[in-house]
Amino acid sequence: MFNKVAIIGIGLIGSSLAQAIARGQLAKEVSISDKNEAYLQEAEKLGLGTHYSSDPVIAVKDADLVILCTPVGAYKAIVEQIAASLAPKSILTDVGSVKGHVVKTLADLLPDHVEFVPGHPISGSENSGPSAGYAELFDNRWCILTPAERSSDAGVEKLQRFWEAVGSDVEVMDAEHHDMVLAITSHLPHLIAYNIVGTADHLESVTKSEVIKFSAGGFRDFTRIAASDPEMWRDVFLTNREAVMEMLGRFSEDLSMLQRAVRFGDGEMLEELFTRTRNIRRSIIDAGQEIDAPDFGRQVVVPEDETGDE
Amino acid sequence: MFNKVAIIGIGLIGSSLAQAIARGQLAKEVSISDKNEAYLQEAEKLGLGTHYSSDPVIAVKDADLVILCTPVGAYKAIVEQIAASLAPKSILTDVGSVKGHVVKTLADLLPDHVEFVPGHPISGSENSGPSAGYAELFDNRWCILTPAERSSDAGVEKLQRFWEAVGSDVEVMDAEHHDMVLAITSHLPHLIAYNIVGTADHLESVTKSEVIKFSAGGFRDFTRIAASDPEMWRDVFLTNREAVMEMLGRFSEDLSMLQRAVRFGDGEMLEELFTRTRNIRRSIIDAGQEIDAPDFGRQVVVPEDETGDE
Repeated sequence: MFNKVAIIGIGLIGSSLAQAIARGQLAKEVSISDKNEAYLQEAEKLGLGTHYSSDPVIAVKDADLVILCTPVGAYKAIVEQIAASLAPKSILTDVGSVKGHVVKTLADLLPDHVEFVPGHPISGSENSGPSAGYAELFDNRWCILTPAERSSDAGVEKLQRFWEAVGSDVEVMDAEHHDMVLAITSHLPHLIAYNIVGTADHLESVTKSEVIKFSAGGFRDFTRIAASDPEMWRDVFLTNREAVMEMLGRFSEDLSMLQRAVRFGDGEMLEELFTRTRNIRRSIIDAGQEIDAPDFGRQVVVPEDETGDE
Repeated sequence: MFNKVAIIGIGLIGSSLAQAIARGQLAKEVSISDKNEAYLQEAEKLGLGTHYSSDPVIAVKDADLVILCTPVGAYKAIVEQIAASLAPKSILTDVGSVKGHVVKTLADLLPDHVEFVPGHPISGSENSGPSAGYAELFDNRWCILTPAERSSDAGVEKLQRFWEAVGSDVEVMDAEHHDMVLAITSHLPHLIAYNIVGTADHLESVTKSEVIKFSAGGFRDFTRIAASDPEMWRDVFLTNREAVMEMLGRFSEDLSMLQRAVRFGDGEMLEELFTRTRNIRRSIIDAGQEIDAPDFGRQVVVPEDETGDE
């Protein structure tokens, strides 16, 4: 499909992409770049690509597809560096969780002979780094493409076929709408999860060991997403501020109403809401975006100190 | 261990207890009562007990252990009904998520010859009903006992051995502290999850099908606990109001600070919080209360409409 794919940033997503490209035999060469030397060595040890370099300018040479897989905040500096070295008719894309900011920041930096098609795979995990990646990460997940003004139909189509070849379904929408959809389906949930785990962390009335011990009551579900990559998520909130603030405003309004219902013991309102939310989960399972397993999807876990010799 | 155990309410927890009792051969007879005839028939079909009756008075006759497994709001009416029929020296316990309210409501209704030891297993799932139960539900989970003033040491010890025999670790604490611990580890997470799923449900700018389609970005983690039993959770918030309001107040204060950090682009504060919360998850995995699996613990899911004949 491509002669040479350059992956800039070899964390969870970059590594998974490299492995999915290998699985599908989608490129003859895969050059990998990361400013983190340890990541680069790990990637080479895992055999994720054909070329490795800490210099992105070297990595993108002759590449017909360049994929930015770093936190969004690092894009500008990287593109300023590589812009002049991008091959004519190559496609530049990314995997960032925010799109409006990316379009705004990068469009003017790129030479006219480069196709620019921003993208965002809706998949991930709470683990980071090259060894956290795996080829199946994108299977049956959605990837959203948000063509910029300068994107050609041919460029968008080629990138769509690429994402389908790594296992994803593809949806095309404008960047602004993407940022609104992701603000509610991803950014706000992360912000709320980070917040509640932070609140639990500095209580005086309940010890941290009690929070950990009794987390199976619901809290642990939040820690899962509150364990996501700190730098990546910092950049998400710095670059999708407006949409996040809009969704946060609505969340807070609704929470005030719910708080009032608890205060005044409005059981009817509570039960009505709790019944409605249950139905939404059913729809997510039916859509294949979640598994239908009991005990919140956990198997029985034996702590390490209980698996000893006795 | 017991001659006859009476289980009042045969939902997820009651059913799991009946199966764990059978697994451990902990009682000669298990009598099951539920006012819901469909649940009772389902329980009989599953062979969960030795006797079935919609009348709790019949179920508790000659039982030396009676376990209330209904929503907390139903306790008072049930105990008023069965109090005079409870056997001398029998133990009455429950599995409710709130303990202060239970102690206050039930203590005066019970005859002196009955041991009253409230309890709460920290385990469950988002599914309800007799067929959602399974014997392993309590394995390696915690069960908290909150002795009432009238509980004897012997009664508490016997119940502790019972919970250990069904697979749990047991911790004893006072009811008030339990309600505070659970408010942060379970009740607040549920309230927040219900709220965010509710917020997503009535947006105009983002369609419901988009929320479902792109839920893998984090939202689906919230729907899991927002799918928990509506009636049970209504009762939790109606009966643990003070502790929930206290935790909600702290959560909201912290959220205001976080909102301010997003508004003013305080990346340092965001990254510091996100790093701290990540460490808490590691502690939960180390404590054996969570599994360490990528992709948020989900396997790859193939939607039903893609597993057809073609």
